[in-house]
Amino acid sequence: VRNHDELVTGVLEGKRLALARLLTLIENDDPLGVSALDHLYAHTGHAHLVGITGAPGSGKSSLVNQIALLLRQTTGGQPARSVGIVAVDPTSPFTGGAVLGDRVRMRDLAGDEGIFIRSMASRGALGGLARTTASIVQVLDASGFDVVLIETVGAGQAEIDVARLAHTTVVVEAPGMGDDIQAIKAGILEIADILVINKADRPGLESTVRALRSIIELGHPTQLQQGPDNSPPLWSPPVLQTIATRSVGIGELVKAIDDHGQYLRETGLWQIRDRSRLEVELTHHIRTELMERWRTTLPAGLYQQMLDDLLARKISPHQAAKRLTQANS
Amino acid sequence: VRNHDELVTGVLEGKRLALARLLTLIENDDPLGVSALDHLYAHTGHAHLVGITGAPGSGKSSLVNQIALLLRQTTGGQPARSVGIVAVDPTSPFTGGAVLGDRVRMRDLAGDEGIFIRSMASRGALGGLARTTASIVQVLDASGFDVVLIETVGAGQAEIDVARLAHTTVVVEAPGMGDDIQAIKAGILEIADILVINKADRPGLESTVRALRSIIELGHPTQLQQGPDNSPPLWSPPVLQTIATRSVGIGELVKAIDDHGQYLRETGLWQIRDRSRLEVELTHHIRTELMERWRTTLPAGLYQQMLDDLLARKISPHQAAKRLTQANS
Repeated sequence: VRNHDELVTGVLEGKRLALARLLTLIENDDPLGVSALDHLYAHTGHAHLVGITGAPGSGKSSLVNQIALLLRQTTGGQPARSVGIVAVDPTSPFTGGAVLGDRVRMRDLAGDEGIFIRSMASRGALGGLARTTASIVQVLDASGFDVVLIETVGAGQAEIDVARLAHTTVVVEAPGMGDDIQAIKAGILEIADILVINKADRPGLESTVRALRSIIELGHPTQLQQGPDNSPPLWSPPVLQTIATRSVGIGELVKAIDDHGQYLRETGLWQIRDRSRLEVELTHHIRTELMERWRTTLPAGLYQQMLDDLLARKISPHQAAKRLTQANS
Repeated sequence: VRNHDELVTGVLEGKRLALARLLTLIENDDPLGVSALDHLYAHTGHAHLVGITGAPGSGKSSLVNQIALLLRQTTGGQPARSVGIVAVDPTSPFTGGAVLGDRVRMRDLAGDEGIFIRSMASRGALGGLARTTASIVQVLDASGFDVVLIETVGAGQAEIDVARLAHTTVVVEAPGMGDDIQAIKAGILEIADILVINKADRPGLESTVRALRSIIELGHPTQLQQGPDNSPPLWSPPVLQTIATRSVGIGELVKAIDDHGQYLRETGLWQIRDRSRLEVELTHHIRTELMERWRTTLPAGLYQQMLDDLLARKISPHQAAKRLTQANS
């Protein structure tokens, strides 16, 4: 797989080597990757994008594996589906956390042509990870995967960004997590379409179920956003229980994911989520374009001088930025 | 406190009302806040900026309270110091997680004029939180606080950003956290100047100590970055144990923070960290400036048209961004 056309054709035919090569090019911001993606983009829009997110220790990775395995079978009236997995690890900006995760994955999912796995660690730059992930999801979508699972580790902005990439967001918790988790729940729950308590055989299950239910009762934004008339029926996030390590509860979870996909399509919310997703992505690209153009037109030495003045407290960061961005206009 | 001069003077005199008012203006991106900060910036550069970060459930907030209480006393040959606390909660973008935390804080720290606390939830925009936090830290610095504690909840990009804001980064763990934590540690440890195992009376302490020590032995970047000759002495991150709820181990922790501050000053690394910190902040401001200028010069209707074309898969996000940013050049 050497040139542009071969890459595009290979990906459209679902060839794994072409896929892997293109994803690497995209991760490295290679112009060949960018131009291949421009061509592939017309073929996107078919996959069900599912975000799986939650706090460390909730057992997300095992759960994602189990979901993928079940999607590969005919289940609940649905045919077997091909599955792309993007595992995003924003917690590991320097070292190979994501690589470790891959080894575990390979053991469970290796050898199935209907599953493709890609792990990414953060590349450091703010916003860069979300943009690259969006591109990788599009490649898998164009390549014909029916479902793309987007997994993130961590608790924070990364989850919000994943929710913006996905049609359906699954938030995974585990019983008996610390008190701090309560505060997180309040924020994360508002992006959750489906709640899963994994490791449901652990102590503390009852209080976690109660806590999640009580927060849901406080109101889900889907309910708040809709008008009184001609409104689509409400989606109330189900609270499911799973034990991924023993394959317990996976069928119900996959059914809930399918139900939510159907709900989005029937209510027209699918299009609305698509639009806001693409808008976020567009903003990332615009920001990158503007920064790149700015860099190329910056007079030599000016940046270093401003940085020196900043350090000497002669000029504030805001004033320095004004000066630096006016220089080339 | 109504006008610009009153605000600036009030903050420089450490008046709490002026402080609180300015921080609100900054959080709301009010031009009055921005211009006051431009004037205050010349007075920054004196505070020791200490980031306290770690996974949910590690008991960071209690630990931050205990550090603040001890810094207020003469301890370990150091005089009592005034303390500004910025509690950043990127996990709670929609609801009032930070507000809950504030109530707990008030109980412990209320009534001491030498302590000022500010809690912030994420304002959604990527990069916006880091920029606003940097500004708030500068205001507290200019106002004369000797130490500014910057606390974040979560595990991921937020920690990295905090590390970039701080001179000294304290990473807090708790015993017996999940397997996923291991991967996080590998990333987070590389930004840690001091490691704390809080809740040290909990089961699993020994294995957590072992895990942290073994990762430290793999090499700290400070060691990797330095050349063979004329190098500053190495800083090896200590692994401390605390029980914040019973005030155990806090003296050792405060001493380690002071030692690290002294180490940075003696080796010249203080200046180097200051520079890279300000460079990150400058980039945030430049990005904001460029985006704002781009928005004001964008032809009416073009953005909406590009978004429609995107949704119809007629044009890729990258192509749309090119089109939109070339329109006004």
